[in-house]
Amino acid sequence: MAEMLSVEEARDRILDHIHPLPAEEVPLPGALGRVLAENAVAGEALPPFTNSAMDGYAVRSADTTGASPEHPVRLRLVGEVPAGQVYAGTLHPGEALRILTGAALPDGGDSVLEQERTRIGEGVVELLAAVSPGTNIRPSGDDVRPGTVLAPKGAEVGPAELALLAALGIQPIRVTRRPTVAIVSTGDELAPLGETPGPGQIRESNGPYLAAVVERAGATPLRLGVARDRVEEIRRLLDEASGADLILTSGGVSVGDYDLVKQILTERGTIDFWRVRMRPGKPLAFGMIGETPVLGLPGNPVSAAVTFELFGRPALRKMCGCSQLERPTVEVVLEGEDLERADRRHFVRASLRSRGGTLTATPTGDQGSHRISSLTGAAALLIIMEGEGIVHAGEHVPAILLNDAGMPWGG
Amino acid sequence: MAEMLSVEEARDRILDHIHPLPAEEVPLPGALGRVLAENAVAGEALPPFTNSAMDGYAVRSADTTGASPEHPVRLRLVGEVPAGQVYAGTLHPGEALRILTGAALPDGGDSVLEQERTRIGEGVVELLAAVSPGTNIRPSGDDVRPGTVLAPKGAEVGPAELALLAALGIQPIRVTRRPTVAIVSTGDELAPLGETPGPGQIRESNGPYLAAVVERAGATPLRLGVARDRVEEIRRLLDEASGADLILTSGGVSVGDYDLVKQILTERGTIDFWRVRMRPGKPLAFGMIGETPVLGLPGNPVSAAVTFELFGRPALRKMCGCSQLERPTVEVVLEGEDLERADRRHFVRASLRSRGGTLTATPTGDQGSHRISSLTGAAALLIIMEGEGIVHAGEHVPAILLNDAGMPWGG
Repeated sequence: MAEMLSVEEARDRILDHIHPLPAEEVPLPGALGRVLAENAVAGEALPPFTNSAMDGYAVRSADTTGASPEHPVRLRLVGEVPAGQVYAGTLHPGEALRILTGAALPDGGDSVLEQERTRIGEGVVELLAAVSPGTNIRPSGDDVRPGTVLAPKGAEVGPAELALLAALGIQPIRVTRRPTVAIVSTGDELAPLGETPGPGQIRESNGPYLAAVVERAGATPLRLGVARDRVEEIRRLLDEASGADLILTSGGVSVGDYDLVKQILTERGTIDFWRVRMRPGKPLAFGMIGETPVLGLPGNPVSAAVTFELFGRPALRKMCGCSQLERPTVEVVLEGEDLERADRRHFVRASLRSRGGTLTATPTGDQGSHRISSLTGAAALLIIMEGEGIVHAGEHVPAILLNDAGMPWGG
Repeated sequence: MAEMLSVEEARDRILDHIHPLPAEEVPLPGALGRVLAENAVAGEALPPFTNSAMDGYAVRSADTTGASPEHPVRLRLVGEVPAGQVYAGTLHPGEALRILTGAALPDGGDSVLEQERTRIGEGVVELLAAVSPGTNIRPSGDDVRPGTVLAPKGAEVGPAELALLAALGIQPIRVTRRPTVAIVSTGDELAPLGETPGPGQIRESNGPYLAAVVERAGATPLRLGVARDRVEEIRRLLDEASGADLILTSGGVSVGDYDLVKQILTERGTIDFWRVRMRPGKPLAFGMIGETPVLGLPGNPVSAAVTFELFGRPALRKMCGCSQLERPTVEVVLEGEDLERADRRHFVRASLRSRGGTLTATPTGDQGSHRISSLTGAAALLIIMEGEGIVHAGEHVPAILLNDAGMPWGG
C-alpha cells in the first residue's frame, strides 16, 4: 500500500533530492528570466559622474545670491556642454556654462539653473533666480554606490534587473543552467495530439500543458510523447529521457492494474509511491533513475496541473537556483459559495477580483479532477486546509497566486 | 512648442493608429503566449464518452437495490474494461463489468460501484452497497459540450487553454502574427553594452530593458543598437528598422538642442511631439514612417520604462490582437509615506504586500526619473491623479499590477 503523506512531507522529500544546477555565463541581453548564480555587485557608481538634471546653466551657487527678475545676476558664458561630452576647464567665479540634460557638471560648478529662469545676452547669461548648492543636479552615486548588491544570488533577472545591470556594465553574467525536463504521458487511453482517438480513447492534453508550465517555470521542456502500456515502449521513452535534468511523467501512478510505469521505474532505480492528503491529486510517485529525479504525476489533467504546481514547480525553481521556490500566497475573501473542509487539503481553482483594496476569490465552478475547463480563468489556488466544518463565503482563505511571473510580492 | 496632452489623449491617439496584425496558423504546442485570432470552439464533447471516475464495477443501478455488507447483491462478472478500451457487448440485468478509471461505461450500465465496496468470487462480484443512477461516472459532455467557446478571440493562450484545446483536438490554431519591434536608442552620451564609456558618457540600458518588456508583451524585439547624434547614422538605423511592425526609440524627443531624431522623423514621415501631463515621462513622440508606427520614448530610463508601460505595451497588445490591452488596475492601501498631488499625474513605483486580504503598496524609495534602482522590486505603478493636496499613507490609491503575465484578474 502506498505511503500516506501530508503536502509538506511530500514536498520536503522531493526537494531534499533536488539541487541547483551548475552555473554558466550568458550575455546580458539573453539573460531575461534566468536566475543569478552569484550576487550582482556594482563595480562603479550610477550615475557615474555628477550631471545636470535639466537643460540650463551650470554655475557656482555662491555667484547667484540675490538673483531675481528685477535684479538679475550677470555671468560670463564660457561655453556649452552637451550630454556625452565634458567641459575641459574649470568653472571660475563669475562664469556660467550652458549645460544640457545628462551632461557632466564642470569642475567648480555646484548647481544648475534651468534655462527658463535665464536670459541670454552677448557672451553673458542673466540669472533670474538664485540656486543653492546641489540644485538640479544628479550626484554621482545617487542611484547606486560602488559595492551595492544590485540583485542577489537566486534572484530572477527581469526587465528592471537587465536595465540596472546594463547601466553598470555587468556583462556577461553568471546564471544557473536552465534545466531540461523530459515529459512522458502514459496510458493506452491517450491519443497523441493530431491523431484521431480510437474507441474508448481520449485526446492527450497533459503533454502540452506540462510543457507550457515547465517553460513558464524557467526550464526547457522536452516532450517525448505518449507511452502506451507496454513494457518495451515505456523503457524506450525512459532511455530517451535519461539525459534530462528531471523526468516528469503523468499517469501510471495510481492503484490501477495496468500501471506498468510503476514496475519499470522500480526496476530502473528507486521509486516511492505516495498518497498525498490533498485533493485533487492524491497519487504521486518520486524517485531517482541514476542521478535523474523522476516525478510521477497523476493522469487526471487537473490533478496533474495541481500536483505540478505544488511539487514540480518548486523542484524546478530549486534546480534553477531560485531563492524563492514558492509562488506568493495571500489572504483573499471567499465569494460565491461555501466550501467544506475534509480530511484531505483541498486546492480550489478560483478567479480573483479586487474591490476597494480587498482581494476576493470565486471558485471556477465544479472542481471535479477531470474538468479541464476549471483551470481556465483560474488566477489562484485557494487552500482549504484539512479539518472539519464549513468555510463560508465572506471568510478569509489563503490563496496561491498563479500569475506572479517571477515578480516580487511581499509575504 | 510641443502639444500638451493628458495620458488618455496620448494613449487614444496612439491606439487609433495601431491595428491587429494578420492571423496565421500555428501548431498547438507552439502557441503558448499567442493570441487567438478567432474563437476556439469545441467540435466535440469532453469527456467524449461517459466513463468511470473510479476503479470498480459498472452496474445497472436497479440491480443494486438493498445491497449492504449484511445482504450483498451477487452479480455475474462478464468481463473487464481498462481505460482505452470498450466493452463490446451490452450490460444486461444481473451483470457487472469490472471497469477501470477513465474506461467507457458499457451500454446498459448507468453507474459504478467502487471496488472497495465489493467482494470478488468465482465469476461473480458481491456488491456491499447500493448505488443510484450516475454514481461514480463522468457523463459525456460534463466538462465541455460541443459548440462551447473554449477561449474567445483575443484571449491569450496560457497553459490551461493549451490543455483544453488539446483535449478537444483543436490544432493547428489561428493566432495573430507576433509583432516585430525595432528598438533604437539615441544619444551621443550612450556607450553600447560591452563598450567602455568615454568621458561624459553613460552605459546604455534602455535597449536591453525595452527588448525585455517587448518580449514579455508578446512581441519579438529587434535591437538595432545606439544611434549617435549624427544625421546619417540615425537615417541608416531607421532604414534597418523599416521592416518592423513598430519602431521604438528612446531619447531625442525632449526640447534639447541636439535632438536630431525629431528632425529625421519629420523628414521621413509624420511625427507629433507631445508633452504628456505625467511624471515621469513628459516628452513623447508618435508618428508614422510609411505604414510603420514610430513611438518615441524619453531617454531617461525610468521615463522610458513608464511610458512604454502606459503607451507601448497597450499598442503591442493591440497589434497582437488581445482583447485586454491594459494590465489589471486594483485598489491598494498606500503605506510608508504621503504623496503630494500635482498638475501632472504621477506614476509611483511600489512594492506590494498582502495583509489579511488587503493589498498594501510601499513606494520603492526616491522616484527620480534617473533612478533605475526604483524599478527593481516594483510590482505596481501607483496612480496619483492630477490635483491638489496630499494622498496620506493609509488611503486607497489605484495601482497598475505589473505582474499579471496575461492571467485574468477581474476588474
